[in-house]
Amino acid sequence: MAPSTPFLAVDLERMQANIARVADAATARGIALRPHVKTHKTIEIGRMQVAAGAHGLTVATVGEAEVFAAAGLDDLCIAYPLWIDADKAARLSALAARGAAISIGVDSVEGVQRLVHAGLAGRVAVRVEIDAGHHRSGCAPAAAGEVASAAMRAGVDVEGIFAFPGHAYAPDARAQAAIDEAEALTAAAASLRAEGIRPLVISGGSTPSFAASLELDSPVTELRPGVSVFGDAQQWELGAAEPEQIALTCHATVVSHAGGRLVLDAGSKALGPDRPAWATGNGRLLDHPDARIVQLSEHHAVVEMQAGGASQTSALPPLGSIVRAVPNHVCTAVNLVDELVVYDRGDDPVPAARWRVAARGRNS
Amino acid sequence: MAPSTPFLAVDLERMQANIARVADAATARGIALRPHVKTHKTIEIGRMQVAAGAHGLTVATVGEAEVFAAAGLDDLCIAYPLWIDADKAARLSALAARGAAISIGVDSVEGVQRLVHAGLAGRVAVRVEIDAGHHRSGCAPAAAGEVASAAMRAGVDVEGIFAFPGHAYAPDARAQAAIDEAEALTAAAASLRAEGIRPLVISGGSTPSFAASLELDSPVTELRPGVSVFGDAQQWELGAAEPEQIALTCHATVVSHAGGRLVLDAGSKALGPDRPAWATGNGRLLDHPDARIVQLSEHHAVVEMQAGGASQTSALPPLGSIVRAVPNHVCTAVNLVDELVVYDRGDDPVPAARWRVAARGRNS
Repeated sequence: MAPSTPFLAVDLERMQANIARVADAATARGIALRPHVKTHKTIEIGRMQVAAGAHGLTVATVGEAEVFAAAGLDDLCIAYPLWIDADKAARLSALAARGAAISIGVDSVEGVQRLVHAGLAGRVAVRVEIDAGHHRSGCAPAAAGEVASAAMRAGVDVEGIFAFPGHAYAPDARAQAAIDEAEALTAAAASLRAEGIRPLVISGGSTPSFAASLELDSPVTELRPGVSVFGDAQQWELGAAEPEQIALTCHATVVSHAGGRLVLDAGSKALGPDRPAWATGNGRLLDHPDARIVQLSEHHAVVEMQAGGASQTSALPPLGSIVRAVPNHVCTAVNLVDELVVYDRGDDPVPAARWRVAARGRNS
Repeated sequence: MAPSTPFLAVDLERMQANIARVADAATARGIALRPHVKTHKTIEIGRMQVAAGAHGLTVATVGEAEVFAAAGLDDLCIAYPLWIDADKAARLSALAARGAAISIGVDSVEGVQRLVHAGLAGRVAVRVEIDAGHHRSGCAPAAAGEVASAAMRAGVDVEGIFAFPGHAYAPDARAQAAIDEAEALTAAAASLRAEGIRPLVISGGSTPSFAASLELDSPVTELRPGVSVFGDAQQWELGAAEPEQIALTCHATVVSHAGGRLVLDAGSKALGPDRPAWATGNGRLLDHPDARIVQLSEHHAVVEMQAGGASQTSALPPLGSIVRAVPNHVCTAVNLVDELVVYDRGDDPVPAARWRVAARGRNS
């Protein structure tokens, strides 16, 4: 039986098609795939990604690495410039001791020194993070050689370099972000080579820039898309996912028709509060492409069925009916729930399984 | 020992002062207090609120009601227009059978009929929800009598009416929202009386409108603030909390100085992604009032220490230092974590306790 609303539902057929499509596209270009599991945090899905050809997985935190390694998925890149405290040093050492292949991000010489001081040289490899235009973490491309060289001299294995072109998350920005990333990684690779270091892995990618990266003359040897496994309203609006590809929705009940609008029992604690300035709403309805969530509280989504506002009550999905809401950002939505309700097909009446979101909340 | 960052830390001394200040202000006006526990979802804090004089608690979902009732905190208003399915009917019946005093929201005659059809008449009471200008759920004030009358005729106990003046969440909107709420509740109460029904409880309130509501000639007999127990960056910016009153922060480590800005290891999965259009950033730093989180990813907060952007690296808190970030919206931040780390005072080096966020994720 389906649980009481709101809950997150996976359309397994669509999700498997998404996994296969991305894996096949990378393989066809000879590019390795290392999907970011922060999106789903779920062992069953990580296994499917590896079975489809991923040569390893990407995580954001030591806690996520622990969860996936414990399930045997232990070829892991922590794509984050960790600052190693005693707790994280002990946990990374334990992962290495049990045979996990772990690489972590560094974007400064100080970060390298910290890692060495913590006794992790020879236990974990590093990848130097490059700022490719998103202006978050990451060193300038020309500084990459200095960071890599500090690591090499201290006995730390340098796997290569990575970037995240997060500035692809804006209208009409996807192709340019992929170009920016290719240029930054090219410059950073040259910076390593000038220090006599060969970057074995040159890693990039995001879901919105994925297709453009495959078309470029780019140095990338590996891509790390995350959201593509499910899709979400952001990708729909950016043109990086068709609505027919969206594989995760929030099943929500219509609890009110107040003001000629739908009020759903799924709020920001079910869908996530993400709303980039360019988004057309706080989320969408999969089966009503003109509808927009125009107001979001913790347990209420107010939906206008078409631009312009209120509708006649008779034109609204009836009170008590269940609709499928598409979160703006699926990664934060999944991180709110302890389980995903899995349907073999999206229109099945009865779920086939429930999967634990095993790495939910593992922020450190 | 403190856990590895990021984690949510409670300043117990400040929180207890917040609880006492709000309780004393309501008591001085003869208004009952029923704090909304969606903010903290924590049994220990609910007990402190009742000990300080709250005559019951407010929750948003059946799941939250179950958690608090199981701990003996069982005088509960579910301030939400529930649509009763079989699962929720069984769970509400079970709560009533064990002696919990439960009232639930209704904003339509159909909602009343549904409740009656589910066999809940005589087991739970209802409160009619009124739209006081936030335009979310809630019926028009003049329609309240019809809804209440439908309930009375079906043998459902009508406790009264309630509203949530959520439009107080905007600059300079707090006083007017309180006025709007008082007017809407006055009209709704008259609508009930015209049907021969006396509203025993006339309930309102939000944290930003709380102070203004106490000053008004208002019909409210009860207020339901939630956020006031902790405060957050939204309340700070709205003028509803002083920074010295903020009792919950996210302890985060500086992991990078990329681009002359701080990069913290607390992102939207630790702070929550909420950012209303009027907010000056994605969150703030408690000990650096000029600083703003200007960019937020799932595991990164990028902070500018003052308006205008980058700083000299020497002027930034050093790499590896821990800063206290203030979430924009504390309710969604708390809902991300399984425990709160409690310090007797905010500057104590060692936590005094860890409290379980017992109702985390209880959306249904």
